[in-house]
Amino acid sequence: MSPPAVDQGPRYAKGFCGGNDFVLLIDPDDDVRLTGNAVRGLCDRYRGLGGDGVLRLVRTEFADPALAGDAEWFMDCRNPDGTVAPMCGPGLGLIARYLLDAGLIAPGEVWIGTSVGAKRTVIDDRGTTSIELLPPEFLGSSSVRLGGREYPGSVISLGNLHLVCFVTTPVEALDLSAEPVLAGPGFGDADLDITWVNVLADGRLRTRVYEPGTGEMRSCGTAVCAAAAARQRAEGAWGTTVVDTDAGPLSVTLRGHGKTVFTGAASVAALGTLDATWITSLDKEPS
Amino acid sequence: MSPPAVDQGPRYAKGFCGGNDFVLLIDPDDDVRLTGNAVRGLCDRYRGLGGDGVLRLVRTEFADPALAGDAEWFMDCRNPDGTVAPMCGPGLGLIARYLLDAGLIAPGEVWIGTSVGAKRTVIDDRGTTSIELLPPEFLGSSSVRLGGREYPGSVISLGNLHLVCFVTTPVEALDLSAEPVLAGPGFGDADLDITWVNVLADGRLRTRVYEPGTGEMRSCGTAVCAAAAARQRAEGAWGTTVVDTDAGPLSVTLRGHGKTVFTGAASVAALGTLDATWITSLDKEPS
Repeated sequence: MSPPAVDQGPRYAKGFCGGNDFVLLIDPDDDVRLTGNAVRGLCDRYRGLGGDGVLRLVRTEFADPALAGDAEWFMDCRNPDGTVAPMCGPGLGLIARYLLDAGLIAPGEVWIGTSVGAKRTVIDDRGTTSIELLPPEFLGSSSVRLGGREYPGSVISLGNLHLVCFVTTPVEALDLSAEPVLAGPGFGDADLDITWVNVLADGRLRTRVYEPGTGEMRSCGTAVCAAAAARQRAEGAWGTTVVDTDAGPLSVTLRGHGKTVFTGAASVAALGTLDATWITSLDKEPS
Repeated sequence: MSPPAVDQGPRYAKGFCGGNDFVLLIDPDDDVRLTGNAVRGLCDRYRGLGGDGVLRLVRTEFADPALAGDAEWFMDCRNPDGTVAPMCGPGLGLIARYLLDAGLIAPGEVWIGTSVGAKRTVIDDRGTTSIELLPPEFLGSSSVRLGGREYPGSVISLGNLHLVCFVTTPVEALDLSAEPVLAGPGFGDADLDITWVNVLADGRLRTRVYEPGTGEMRSCGTAVCAAAAARQRAEGAWGTTVVDTDAGPLSVTLRGHGKTVFTGAASVAALGTLDATWITSLDKEPS
């Protein structure tokens, strides 16, 4: 046998769910100290492994003992800029897929701990995941300025905060290379993700999403749900909405009793071991 | 023991050398049939693993028996658009690093088979690689049109073909979002990579590179060498040139007896197994 060809660091998987890709660190015993530099390096699409975020999968007994009775596994989710993401629907879907493929759960429901509580995900034997998000909570109105125009919208919380702006000109025409600037009220210290939405002739929605610190996102599970929730609030109809994103169509179901269900296909592309020297070198880079 | 959590496909590494990143498939027995769709999917930075190319590492006895006496290992290199790349300096550097880390070679020299012959690479125990490329061969002149301007340049072969255009306006100002169009003679069927070069005040070069089928490249080992060779030809001085690329500075040494040596740091970031179902799914996507 030859040596393993890496200086063995954390185990990881690269995978996808609902239009996003992630680096999943498999850290059951809570051994990995994940710095902002390491997260930024891992998510870098040229100098790292590339991803819309890093998910650290930890046993809940170590991550949040108070939740351990509700969920065996916990998702410690980080944004590409290194900050903590309180919630990420597609992240939960990918974790469910990993647990299923690893034989750690059976098809059906799984509860996964997050910093906003234990969340229920249902996965079938083909990897389609339905993720229950928090009920959307309407916090008020605000607006954002972009390219000399001001866009009014609704601020909606799904654990993280979204400003949803309906527009009638096609969202494809927006220039998101410049940074949108919040022009109306903020809501606490948290940054607002901004989502511009068109209602299409066939009833689908078309979105583009900007995340402060990251820039434009091809897709974002909670943003898609916030867009559907804002439309439901304006028009009153419950049910399933298809939302076209830069990463393809996604599906959101809203019901009167408050549940939000985000549906996406999850897959694991690769599984392996990070080189410990390499991940340590990321930590030495300027932040 | 739990299952491996992937449907076990080819072994792979993700790694870097000289400003480029690659997916390295470890296929000693020549088992992997690598289609254009699979290469494009693997290199995709959102739907795949991301990379400037796929390197398939095969025993030379299977890949090219005639070369087996000169090199134990062979690099089957593919561009991100799925086409075969005859040569890739940084690819050789990464393979040398993988072989070193896997205990398959010692620090020092290693000969690696390519479709343009066996190539010598020297690697030290810290992963710095010096890769010997073909002597640059001047084939003639041509020109390229971009943004309403025509840029004359020299066509140089280093196994693959490059058009090197010296310009006095900063290359940073070039808009490479539009496709440059060859305006002068082509040279056979092969596409020409286009490199625009500034000579900086301190003698360094600054390059930007466009690869047909791929678009702008942050860096390209042979393009950097072609730029240094074109300058040597114009000015007559041999020796080492530092070339600033979008991926950082690289070093090229030209000597009168024809050798070209490209120097870059190589590292393996991760090592693992691809999911067989996932890589098969790539093959079903429209080309």
